[in-house]
Amino acid sequence: MISSSQSKLIRSLQKKKYRQEKRLFPVEGEKLVGELLQADPAGRFHIRELFAAPEWIAAHPSLQLHRNARITEASPADFRKISSQVSPQPVLALVSIPEEEFRMEELLQKPVLAFESIRDPGNLGTILRTADWFGIGQVVCSPDSTDLYNPKVVQSTMGAIFRVRVSYLDLEELLKRREMRDRSVAGTFLEGDNLYETTLDPDSFILFGNESHGLSKRLTHLIGKRISIPSFSGQDPGPESLNVAASVAVVCSELRRRTTGATQSEN
Amino acid sequence: MISSSQSKLIRSLQKKKYRQEKRLFPVEGEKLVGELLQADPAGRFHIRELFAAPEWIAAHPSLQLHRNARITEASPADFRKISSQVSPQPVLALVSIPEEEFRMEELLQKPVLAFESIRDPGNLGTILRTADWFGIGQVVCSPDSTDLYNPKVVQSTMGAIFRVRVSYLDLEELLKRREMRDRSVAGTFLEGDNLYETTLDPDSFILFGNESHGLSKRLTHLIGKRISIPSFSGQDPGPESLNVAASVAVVCSELRRRTTGATQSEN
Repeated sequence: MISSSQSKLIRSLQKKKYRQEKRLFPVEGEKLVGELLQADPAGRFHIRELFAAPEWIAAHPSLQLHRNARITEASPADFRKISSQVSPQPVLALVSIPEEEFRMEELLQKPVLAFESIRDPGNLGTILRTADWFGIGQVVCSPDSTDLYNPKVVQSTMGAIFRVRVSYLDLEELLKRREMRDRSVAGTFLEGDNLYETTLDPDSFILFGNESHGLSKRLTHLIGKRISIPSFSGQDPGPESLNVAASVAVVCSELRRRTTGATQSEN
Repeated sequence: MISSSQSKLIRSLQKKKYRQEKRLFPVEGEKLVGELLQADPAGRFHIRELFAAPEWIAAHPSLQLHRNARITEASPADFRKISSQVSPQPVLALVSIPEEEFRMEELLQKPVLAFESIRDPGNLGTILRTADWFGIGQVVCSPDSTDLYNPKVVQSTMGAIFRVRVSYLDLEELLKRREMRDRSVAGTFLEGDNLYETTLDPDSFILFGNESHGLSKRLTHLIGKRISIPSFSGQDPGPESLNVAASVAVVCSELRRRTTGATQSEN
């Protein structure tokens, strides 16, 4: 049974302020908690509290690896009290927000996706899921971006949050660092080199702008390469822009397609 | 000023039942109403009622083209009463849902995107926006899919709803029609031909499955070509799938990239 103080704690974690104070975030549902138990090879995420139906607990012996987790049996009525979802799930975990030190060297190799002022939690979650699918392990967000541990972000990552590393950093400062000087830095713009025709370093550091305003002037002059996803609309006036998560999918796909080295079958 | 019966009508249109009864849907905000005024060359969408700040009305003389529109001046306080948005906008239109006859010939040429049981309004809206960007003018949804005129769908299309034609049709019946026999029909699956390596008719009819269950058995045996977006995750266990709107972005991008006929710059 979930006590009223536990249920108050869980509900408070919908808010960033309380997540930061308690250094905890909720992970809800069989799919996501299952991913956490399976998919966290580096052991970055620790379950502190877990509320679950007795059958769920019995079916997940790997829970024992989370030694400090306090496990509480909970009923469907308990879950209706605490769930943020339309259909309450049989399991909810409170997980420690990892205290991570920033490691510059991780941003210097391999492709990195970076986001300025990304606002929509569903967009950020979908982006992490896409990065994960295309094997891009590092994401950077400007500090004013939506919080990674917002339950809507966590939910829409479908587990990618446990595999992709996300750092919140001042992007201008980062781009000006000496270590970044030799880095291929690209940004997505409405006007730029045609993505399909331009060369693109497979290990690029690629920036995406805010949903409404794109990349700011503070950053554009620090970006070596401007790329653009061409529109094929042919209408005038046509669409103004692509959704940022759709742009990320297109850019990641194009980056990886090229590195497969396969001979492309053109139509 | 917005009367209480008008404000009751507007709020009722959040529900599909009332939208269907009244054959009206709300279009909210400067961006979307602006797109409607500019971007509906075929004149499919008629404004019935429009509520706006006097300055907005003065700045939009093209409103006069919507002759049957009843225009009401509205104040910020009015908009706070009726808005579904966090920041109320200075304009809201009630627009007739077009009575469209189904035209089979439109589905026989050019690429078509088709969706089985798509549920998330944000996904459907983003998909229409992506289709619009890539110049794909025809979308088909199975009848149990989310409603096109749901305000969340309308909002997330960013105006694409006025340019992309969406039909709700039984997909099994459609695929079995004689006219479809010579059509290149492809479907996206977790297991299929590698998208980057396979041939793909540029005018394909391409099916995408439900967010959780993919394409159903009812349809799979009617699909000539199974395509798959390969994962580059390299982790085990890795991600299970891509978000459907991200998959659409990748497939549309790849379809159009090939038809540009540009010599690709490989890394």
